[in-house]
Amino acid sequence: MNMKRTEIGEIGEFGLIDRLSEALKTKQQSTIKGIGDDAAVIDCGSSYMVITTDMLLEGVHFDLGYCPLKHLGFKAIAVNVSDVAAMNAIPKQVTVSIGLSNRFSVEAVQELYQGVEAAASHYNLDVVGGDTTTSRSGLIISVTAIGEVPKNLIAYRSGAKKNDIICVTGDLGAAIVGLQVLERDKQVFLSNPNMQPELQKYEYVVGRQLKPDARMDIIHELRELEVSPSSMIDVSDGLASELMHISRLSDKGVTIYEDKLPIDKQTYDTALEFNLDPITCVLNGGEDYELLFTISQEDFPKLEKHPDIHFIGHVTDADEGKLLVTKSGTTARLKAQGWKHF
Amino acid sequence: MNMKRTEIGEIGEFGLIDRLSEALKTKQQSTIKGIGDDAAVIDCGSSYMVITTDMLLEGVHFDLGYCPLKHLGFKAIAVNVSDVAAMNAIPKQVTVSIGLSNRFSVEAVQELYQGVEAAASHYNLDVVGGDTTTSRSGLIISVTAIGEVPKNLIAYRSGAKKNDIICVTGDLGAAIVGLQVLERDKQVFLSNPNMQPELQKYEYVVGRQLKPDARMDIIHELRELEVSPSSMIDVSDGLASELMHISRLSDKGVTIYEDKLPIDKQTYDTALEFNLDPITCVLNGGEDYELLFTISQEDFPKLEKHPDIHFIGHVTDADEGKLLVTKSGTTARLKAQGWKHF
Repeated sequence: MNMKRTEIGEIGEFGLIDRLSEALKTKQQSTIKGIGDDAAVIDCGSSYMVITTDMLLEGVHFDLGYCPLKHLGFKAIAVNVSDVAAMNAIPKQVTVSIGLSNRFSVEAVQELYQGVEAAASHYNLDVVGGDTTTSRSGLIISVTAIGEVPKNLIAYRSGAKKNDIICVTGDLGAAIVGLQVLERDKQVFLSNPNMQPELQKYEYVVGRQLKPDARMDIIHELRELEVSPSSMIDVSDGLASELMHISRLSDKGVTIYEDKLPIDKQTYDTALEFNLDPITCVLNGGEDYELLFTISQEDFPKLEKHPDIHFIGHVTDADEGKLLVTKSGTTARLKAQGWKHF
Repeated sequence: MNMKRTEIGEIGEFGLIDRLSEALKTKQQSTIKGIGDDAAVIDCGSSYMVITTDMLLEGVHFDLGYCPLKHLGFKAIAVNVSDVAAMNAIPKQVTVSIGLSNRFSVEAVQELYQGVEAAASHYNLDVVGGDTTTSRSGLIISVTAIGEVPKNLIAYRSGAKKNDIICVTGDLGAAIVGLQVLERDKQVFLSNPNMQPELQKYEYVVGRQLKPDARMDIIHELRELEVSPSSMIDVSDGLASELMHISRLSDKGVTIYEDKLPIDKQTYDTALEFNLDPITCVLNGGEDYELLFTISQEDFPKLEKHPDIHFIGHVTDADEGKLLVTKSGTTARLKAQGWKHF
């Protein structure tokens, strides 16, 4: 036997997903959209149901050395709600499965669940099920979220049209910079346990890493303003990577402007302190859980004055490619480095 | 600070779930049933949607030393489909999340997915999403399944009525006996790698452990025969444990008869070979993934001649308790030992 062995790192997470989903053809009439967007879409008669799932693993996605269990419980829900939001849907139910090693006490699990409950209350959704099991190593949290959206309001990654305006909410890059602060403080603490971390100075960026908030506020506002995004995705892997998805699936080009990219002052200053290029953090940082979407030019006046929506570029023909216009006016090809867990 | 530390083992898995779900009140109008049955139930307008999730962890729920990846992929889907079946619903979609350490190659993951695809095809459902991520240790599979059921056909654990007949499908105890065979062969192989396991003799019981089949055939037949179970649960933790759930949630007693309990000859013989009491395997073995349900006396003639449905007892008033009438005619209290992963 001469079995071929391909390392997962050779093809990457997206490559693996592509390979696995090739053989998976959908057959159910009610399956409107399977793998390939922020969430799957199921026809429920009068509306669409969206469903998405995310698994967080200790030592890969979080470090209990600096992530309090309560924040972790909140985050596990928020990252799934963010995927529901990215379909322009409202979350309704979640299931929460946890795997625990015996180093966790009942009180520790309850603390984790306090965060889950806080998120359920914040996003007005129900925890309807789950699974609890023992784990031989570390903590595992797997969440599935279900949301609802009127059929005419569903937003896919694939709907961007030429001349649409590219919008992004909030500010970007803070979560990755917050992670640097936490990692440094952990090292300092390990070498000198009496040292108190100086977190006040970094409160915003650290908070963005530890307790991200899905932008359901924006989804509700878009409905009130009667703006239906032509395409949408949440920023989990980094702005550049998400723009690539919209571009590829919509078969369009994108041009964005460096001077339009939203970055918080604390993110900017802290990035420099860590010898990181702030723009690289914005483009490739990931875990921001903001919304990236496109709107028609007609809808622009409705959002123009919104304090938390930024207009960073526009959609072009596919052959114009994916471009970044720098502050100095030069044009560079946009590269997605993403945020790889493989 | 004097934080109390309660070990999870002290209160058990069910105790933990009870404690966690206490604080979780459902608020959404569309949430018909949250935690506490085989699946959650969501109102979708013209029908109910059921949703269930299960997480399988290497070293806890499976051992790749004897569980082929393809079988594992199939089983991960089947155990969730079994929960959908237990609501009298038809599965439509699943999401599959996997965590992988770098000892797994792309080819290994593809083998796992061949099992997932085989199950998707067998149960006529769509794989609509998931998450793939790296794991620092071992393989993790978390599956969520969605099913559909007409509102008037939903079967809860809580619907058993006095004088209903208790039915169980297939035969019981084989999976736990199969596990004993696999564990013994693993030890033999470890001490002498040239020894070939003698699996033909144990083919049925080993197959029941490695590749369980959810009883969707029964669900379809019940619909054709227009039999709507008054209560239903799948046998994952062992018959006695499942009877306790139906009894407690229906607020009824149950009486079952030892001589009516279905056991395969190979299960019986192999149990004795391993010095196990066959009836204990039937009552507390678990992982059988058969269906346990109750029907009204009126419906009995419709199922009476069914070759694969066994009538093992009847429902009584709550104060009569949970009883097992042995072959010798004596009456014993039924005890649920379940199949604890904590």
